[in-house]
Amino acid sequence: MQFREDISTWLMQLQDTICSALEQADGRSKFIEDKWEREEGGGGRSRIIDDGAVIEKGGVGFSAVHGKTPGFLMKEGEHAVSSQINKESTFFATGVSIVIHPQSPMVPIIHMNIRYFETSDGVKWLGGGIDLTPHYVNKEDAKFFHEALKKVCDKHDPAYYPKFKTWADDYFYIPHRKETRGIGGVFFDRITSDDQETFNKQLAFWKEIGETFAPTYVELIKRNKDKAFGENEKNWQLLRRGRYVEFNLVYDKGTKFGLETNGRIESILMSLPKYVSWQYNFIPEKNSKEEETLGLLKKGIDYLK
Amino acid sequence: MQFREDISTWLMQLQDTICSALEQADGRSKFIEDKWEREEGGGGRSRIIDDGAVIEKGGVGFSAVHGKTPGFLMKEGEHAVSSQINKESTFFATGVSIVIHPQSPMVPIIHMNIRYFETSDGVKWLGGGIDLTPHYVNKEDAKFFHEALKKVCDKHDPAYYPKFKTWADDYFYIPHRKETRGIGGVFFDRITSDDQETFNKQLAFWKEIGETFAPTYVELIKRNKDKAFGENEKNWQLLRRGRYVEFNLVYDKGTKFGLETNGRIESILMSLPKYVSWQYNFIPEKNSKEEETLGLLKKGIDYLK
Repeated sequence: MQFREDISTWLMQLQDTICSALEQADGRSKFIEDKWEREEGGGGRSRIIDDGAVIEKGGVGFSAVHGKTPGFLMKEGEHAVSSQINKESTFFATGVSIVIHPQSPMVPIIHMNIRYFETSDGVKWLGGGIDLTPHYVNKEDAKFFHEALKKVCDKHDPAYYPKFKTWADDYFYIPHRKETRGIGGVFFDRITSDDQETFNKQLAFWKEIGETFAPTYVELIKRNKDKAFGENEKNWQLLRRGRYVEFNLVYDKGTKFGLETNGRIESILMSLPKYVSWQYNFIPEKNSKEEETLGLLKKGIDYLK
Repeated sequence: MQFREDISTWLMQLQDTICSALEQADGRSKFIEDKWEREEGGGGRSRIIDDGAVIEKGGVGFSAVHGKTPGFLMKEGEHAVSSQINKESTFFATGVSIVIHPQSPMVPIIHMNIRYFETSDGVKWLGGGIDLTPHYVNKEDAKFFHEALKKVCDKHDPAYYPKFKTWADDYFYIPHRKETRGIGGVFFDRITSDDQETFNKQLAFWKEIGETFAPTYVELIKRNKDKAFGENEKNWQLLRRGRYVEFNLVYDKGTKFGLETNGRIESILMSLPKYVSWQYNFIPEKNSKEEETLGLLKKGIDYLK
């Protein structure tokens, strides 16, 4: 139980730090906090920022929930946990989830999530990910972003970055569009070890992924927030946000899990953008910046080069 | 094979009639046609209207596709067809699908779909539905709409309207919001009979559902298109469209079926609105028109009273 409290406390502090950094980078809007409780056990604090100078809509959510391990986690299928779990099992899950939709189409959308899950049967898992969705892919920014993630990974295990980068390419993918959501990042799940020392090292890596979010995104904001744009760029941003909605509502496992487990709907869907557009069969002009970006929404691109 | 051709021809004529009626009601924009072919067999013609005087974005799609019956139709589950189907089975499916998103929040969104499905194993099914999604529920309009549907139903079978109205309430429902999508309408599926005379009667009913769409919606346009509205109403419309997107991407079986069977994505997603908004935890003011509408987004309301 001490570990549950420690990890939740650490995540709440991370939420505080990230919100402060984002407020400072925004310069106008402040986060509003919504505390909520879950009937079956636990709760969270959702922090929402709206109509900022830089951020149009963003959410930084913390939650720590517990209860009877949901039945579908014991079944076969994509959420299946393992045969380690029995019918009397209880679970505890805590995490921080972030999605930021900027005002300017020149500033990328970012997502970060780190989560910890354990059951009374002895299962304990770390998971997480960060991915960047630029409306216009800028290769220098992409390199900066992937380098920041690689640095954290390499410090802990040289196998992490290549493995988790590929995992992100596969996860943040929209099959019906044959497009990646953006330029990827890292994604990992079910990191664990029975050896306490190894687990502590995994935990340290996981924490650093969380800590690298604010400085990395704040730098990307600084680099791009004053860039000029016009109506074309704004329209393209609304269309790219449409793809973001398609990914989140059709494929994102966190969203699906939330909807299926009767989660707090406003907290689950705080990832959705404020203004979005769908236009029938929009095809970018030949040799446009939009076409160039579409061409880069593919798996397996090495942005470190 | 003659029946396949007859029913497709009839559906294409229905598409023509509906597009003409909508163009006339709009008075400014015309439908643009996109013909497409399906690699595995068949194709369709998508008709799109954009930025009209009345219609902001709308699609009237026809398709007639055939091929090897998809494996998942033979499995257990929501799309399961039945044990009537064997491995060598081929299928044919044709239909017309419509979603219209008006410019004005005072004009309701409408959806209509009628479809026919058959397999080489002797399965033949009629399905369809019409449902109305007013941004503001107007009880007189709701009564007019449900009366039009009841009239068609009653002409064929007095059991149809109550059964298909309830089916629509259950189908056009957003569980995670605990809201219906709108004021419902009728929904039915797998209507069939081995007796040819009975099947012909069912087919006549199904055709009349298709034919009742244009006059009913055109009347609703006429009643509401000149009503005044302001920024509040426009914002509420964008939020209600968000719910429409949530329903279509998370729950709608037609959309899911299309995404899972590698359907033509732009035709599947032509149901999505042009401009949409999500705002965190939007709660309408006490005793507002918006609150009143929310209170009516429930199953089981009898609008005929």
